[in-house]
Amino acid sequence: MDLKLNDTDIHKIKKVGDYIRILSLESIERAKSGHPGLPLGCAELGVLIYRYLLKFSPTHPQWINRDRFILSAGHGSMLLYSLLHLTQYPISLEDLAQFRQLGSKTAGHPEYDIPLGIETTTGPLGQGFTNAVGCAIEGKFLATRFNKKDNSASLLDYTVFTLMGDGCNMEGISYEAGSLAGHLGLDNLVAIYDSNNISIDGKMDITFTEDVGKRYEAMGWHVEHTDIQHIQDVLSKLLLLKEMKQGKPKLLIVKTTIGEGLKSKKGTPDIHGAPAGLDEIAYFIQNSTIRELFENAYGKEAIADTDGLKSIIEKRVKEKKEGLLEFPEALQFMKEGVEAGNRAYDEWVKITEDLKKNSHQDYEEFHTFFNTEFPSTLRQELLNYKESKVDATRNISGKILNLCAGKIPHIVGGCADLKGSTKAEIKGSPYMKRDDFSGRNIAFGVREHAMGAIGNGLALNRTLIPFTSTFFTFFDYMKPAVRLAALMKLRHLFIFTHDSIYVGEDGPTHQPIEHLNAMRLIPGLYTFRPANDIETAFTYLYFLEEMNGPAAIINTRQTLSESMFNHAGDREEMYTAFKKGGYIFYETQSTVKPDIILCGSGSELSTAMEAARLIEERDKKSVRVVSIPCLELLNEKGDEYRRELFPEGVRVIMIEAASYRGVEFFNSSQVTMVKMDRFGLSAPDKKVCEYFGFTPEAVYQKIK
Amino acid sequence: MDLKLNDTDIHKIKKVGDYIRILSLESIERAKSGHPGLPLGCAELGVLIYRYLLKFSPTHPQWINRDRFILSAGHGSMLLYSLLHLTQYPISLEDLAQFRQLGSKTAGHPEYDIPLGIETTTGPLGQGFTNAVGCAIEGKFLATRFNKKDNSASLLDYTVFTLMGDGCNMEGISYEAGSLAGHLGLDNLVAIYDSNNISIDGKMDITFTEDVGKRYEAMGWHVEHTDIQHIQDVLSKLLLLKEMKQGKPKLLIVKTTIGEGLKSKKGTPDIHGAPAGLDEIAYFIQNSTIRELFENAYGKEAIADTDGLKSIIEKRVKEKKEGLLEFPEALQFMKEGVEAGNRAYDEWVKITEDLKKNSHQDYEEFHTFFNTEFPSTLRQELLNYKESKVDATRNISGKILNLCAGKIPHIVGGCADLKGSTKAEIKGSPYMKRDDFSGRNIAFGVREHAMGAIGNGLALNRTLIPFTSTFFTFFDYMKPAVRLAALMKLRHLFIFTHDSIYVGEDGPTHQPIEHLNAMRLIPGLYTFRPANDIETAFTYLYFLEEMNGPAAIINTRQTLSESMFNHAGDREEMYTAFKKGGYIFYETQSTVKPDIILCGSGSELSTAMEAARLIEERDKKSVRVVSIPCLELLNEKGDEYRRELFPEGVRVIMIEAASYRGVEFFNSSQVTMVKMDRFGLSAPDKKVCEYFGFTPEAVYQKIK
Repeated sequence: MDLKLNDTDIHKIKKVGDYIRILSLESIERAKSGHPGLPLGCAELGVLIYRYLLKFSPTHPQWINRDRFILSAGHGSMLLYSLLHLTQYPISLEDLAQFRQLGSKTAGHPEYDIPLGIETTTGPLGQGFTNAVGCAIEGKFLATRFNKKDNSASLLDYTVFTLMGDGCNMEGISYEAGSLAGHLGLDNLVAIYDSNNISIDGKMDITFTEDVGKRYEAMGWHVEHTDIQHIQDVLSKLLLLKEMKQGKPKLLIVKTTIGEGLKSKKGTPDIHGAPAGLDEIAYFIQNSTIRELFENAYGKEAIADTDGLKSIIEKRVKEKKEGLLEFPEALQFMKEGVEAGNRAYDEWVKITEDLKKNSHQDYEEFHTFFNTEFPSTLRQELLNYKESKVDATRNISGKILNLCAGKIPHIVGGCADLKGSTKAEIKGSPYMKRDDFSGRNIAFGVREHAMGAIGNGLALNRTLIPFTSTFFTFFDYMKPAVRLAALMKLRHLFIFTHDSIYVGEDGPTHQPIEHLNAMRLIPGLYTFRPANDIETAFTYLYFLEEMNGPAAIINTRQTLSESMFNHAGDREEMYTAFKKGGYIFYETQSTVKPDIILCGSGSELSTAMEAARLIEERDKKSVRVVSIPCLELLNEKGDEYRRELFPEGVRVIMIEAASYRGVEFFNSSQVTMVKMDRFGLSAPDKKVCEYFGFTPEAVYQKIK
Repeated sequence: MDLKLNDTDIHKIKKVGDYIRILSLESIERAKSGHPGLPLGCAELGVLIYRYLLKFSPTHPQWINRDRFILSAGHGSMLLYSLLHLTQYPISLEDLAQFRQLGSKTAGHPEYDIPLGIETTTGPLGQGFTNAVGCAIEGKFLATRFNKKDNSASLLDYTVFTLMGDGCNMEGISYEAGSLAGHLGLDNLVAIYDSNNISIDGKMDITFTEDVGKRYEAMGWHVEHTDIQHIQDVLSKLLLLKEMKQGKPKLLIVKTTIGEGLKSKKGTPDIHGAPAGLDEIAYFIQNSTIRELFENAYGKEAIADTDGLKSIIEKRVKEKKEGLLEFPEALQFMKEGVEAGNRAYDEWVKITEDLKKNSHQDYEEFHTFFNTEFPSTLRQELLNYKESKVDATRNISGKILNLCAGKIPHIVGGCADLKGSTKAEIKGSPYMKRDDFSGRNIAFGVREHAMGAIGNGLALNRTLIPFTSTFFTFFDYMKPAVRLAALMKLRHLFIFTHDSIYVGEDGPTHQPIEHLNAMRLIPGLYTFRPANDIETAFTYLYFLEEMNGPAAIINTRQTLSESMFNHAGDREEMYTAFKKGGYIFYETQSTVKPDIILCGSGSELSTAMEAARLIEERDKKSVRVVSIPCLELLNEKGDEYRRELFPEGVRVIMIEAASYRGVEFFNSSQVTMVKMDRFGLSAPDKKVCEYFGFTPEAVYQKIK
């Protein structure tokens, strides 16, 4: 369905666009930092999307069938915040004015907050685009399950839009994700490429001269070109692409001008990532449709006088005595988009009600899927899980994954071309494929980075519970995505196998050494390294039942020793101990205080246990063996529990085939550390330092 | 220049191919692990390359103008080892038979060893291809400097060949590298795509259906197709592509069959990464040109009897009483390739001698470039470096980089589209571009991963000293390449800026928290975090003068405090202290033993210093401030120096705005750790565990 704009429409679109420009320019100027280039270049594009394309309801931001808009080029955050403000999401003009300040809703880069209209955290380039691929896969997956085959009722038919820049397109992750999206024929995905021919270091011709459209075509996409100057053409093509269902994801390449509306910085790298400055803002106000708004506020003469105007702006953005200017006309114009979205929401509710009436079982399935609790029968199975023979935890993990997947239909995922090795596969379910998303397995291909970020995309709506899997050494290839899962606290299970040097013959490239502790360092991620059948089952139980964020399970390739299995005890007690992150796994009989304590995780608990036997046999000493399935949890438990496990005066031997290089220096109780325990935040650097205690005064107080 | 093969040639090529197959099959069977699929599928391809294409001299493996062959699909290592054996590199049949054993020359994946003919370490997919792009850039760079403009003397005209598989092509890094290679028009690069339509998890149609040729064309490559069945066509196209100089890198897509020569595993994923088994080997011997070789050794009847043959093979590969079979005919055939290479080497030597005679100055420049020492004048400048005002270390680092680049013409490098921010740019030198490689800067684009691996490629020959640069938070995007730089001990300087939370407004996505310690964990990499002008200069001095491996310098975005500058003292003594990784930066006057010690690195040394002033002023206590520019070096210095810096009984406050999550648990002198201090190695896992002390017995002995 096309839509013909008349001159009034186009004029209004440009006016709202200019309003977004001034909101962006002023907010960035106030913050003394930010990226005006994209909001200025793509303002009308944003207006078109939120006014005519996107199906959304700000009063029901978590509506499962809303269209998604993901700003992959996250540095252009002011565009998104402005649009969310204009479409009645809970972002006020005051919030915009607080751009990049401590505790504000408007962080430097968009931070995942669906109620606010922010579908995902973006900023690291290519991640948002790849999350969008994940969202589109989820859309296909859900549509297959819940839409009527005869198309009589479409409960799930949302479209995912994503806006990407040159940076996103240069990143390898976007190629990986694009290639997989093309393979899967995700025709519910519309990517918009803000092609402004400028990056931070200059014009694109210094480094990026490929034919992007042809590349996407090679990957199986449908590609269209347009120019932001031709508003009607942009809208028509966007509408066309949204409707086009030909088994291909779609790319619209939009020629834009970075910093559109400015005088000398327009079309230059200077405007990418720094405030425009008073001269440019004054020029923009005098030469854009926004002039009227300022004339109404300050009088025509004041605006006509450039020096006077500059001092007005200076007062606005430096002294901050005045807020951002309201522009009811813009709100009014965008309101029609909101109302269309709200109507769509109401219609959707009606479809669900009709379903409830006419096809109760279908409705129940649908309703249950989106409103499930952790199944208590599964809890019992996992709690009492037992292997009949010694094995590698990768095999055990594979079986338990299937046990869980059998009870929890939300579990979906796949491997980076290593299912035979990592065993992370839902048995009996096919791969998702073009035109058939009934499967729950995704053949990610040798695309670890995209796998991680697609998994994140699948987790964003908190409906599905994705798993992704590869060799632990290739955690490196997907680290940026793992970090974002941790930052967003997504329920995403990372299944890694081939845990250390036990990989043997494949050699150092395939033996993860530094990876275990590198992973533990990531705030918000919990790294589990189970040592036997029970700990493997407990890891899944804990992740599924109690966690609301990401976990990594690190499994062995090799079979573990006999001493790890047939571990007896009350399972509830054992689980309680497990959840402390470390617990007494074995102790020499009738020991009050052991002579020595051995501890380890995963593979090395076997080593610890066998070394303990040697000590008992040869030296007749009493030994305690402590298993540490999750060092982060143990660390959080504090000193009292620590002393319980490791009584003072008893030497502790910690065995892990992992690097502690550098940080081991602090292996001394002489040292007190002032360090970071979480991810950072968006605010001026001095504020951030104060917040985290990295000021001389805070250090002084800590010492006192 | 084309080359017509007659039937005899083709027959011989197939025979050598079959010999490579049996060497691979038997060696992998002996090792009980390995990847036969590629060596079997690409055997003739390898023969053609080493026999007709590659210009190399095994007696002068480090010849700077040799053609490079990089096996990007490193799992197919037996192909490379077999070829190196056949072309007189110091890899014997015994070495092949020791495939994947402790201490052998023939590790599971190829490990960087130019004298052995192994140009780079491969295995992590896409890295080798990207290294090849780096080698090709180096070729262009050197050619621009040392070839006569009139083409009368080509000292440097080598071609880089790389063999990649589906896995390499799916990895985002190969797209990034391919896109940049196309942009730069690297017509000295020939990539060969082993297109066998199979990956580990199945046929490519489960995940990889893009038009690879079209993608490369979109990136500016020249693409040809062929089929390994048509030996003449493969050779003709390879010769054509090697000669073609049209400002485009070249891709030859070769249709192959994985596991070629086998019965039931041919063309299946089963043969990708596991030994073929006795049945398949027997079938291969009976049905290939290699039959004769076995008949000569064991008699015709023995080979005709399948069961008998299987027990022969079993004895060969299990009991290992007999070595791999010699095949002089294959050596003889390949010798012609070696001799052609040696002749090319001699001719090249003659060109250099002529140059010496006829154009002495040109010769001197050339000779000096490849035989330089660290300039002593630069040593003095760096030793005495001083800033006139307070500044951020990123700015200081930029100036010092230029100081060094002015004296050392081997320094080349660039940024991932952030030169304005990281200051890692050689001023006054243009970007390298298509047809003009006179510049020393590379505009890598937003392609961090490829940047890292291209930097590695530039460093491989140990002629150039590359630097690469981006924000520290994007270390994540390039980690797999940084790891390989460390594993190969390449002289590659990683320049990171925006070191922690001080990034401020850009928020958590741009604030590296876990990165500092994650980097320190990498064996072989040294992470420097200078706190002022002097430490920044010393970092460059130490890297350039004393190191023979990679270093990372982590610079600040923000200006450091006054207290960091105007630091007085004898510079030689200060440098000696710096090289210990940590040293006393400040001490309250006439202190014998301080009341408290504050320490930190980089940004936080400012914080430590200012907190120290507060303690002195408010509490009248004596304070010591220890700067730790390189924790890894300090850690290596041992306990005596540690006690000197940190006398017993004095509390130490370590300040770093970095995560120590998990590993901080070991911040107790109660704990002894059994851990990994280096990268792993290729051998059976039990051997590896013994080697590194991860056996119960070794742990027991350590405790004793």
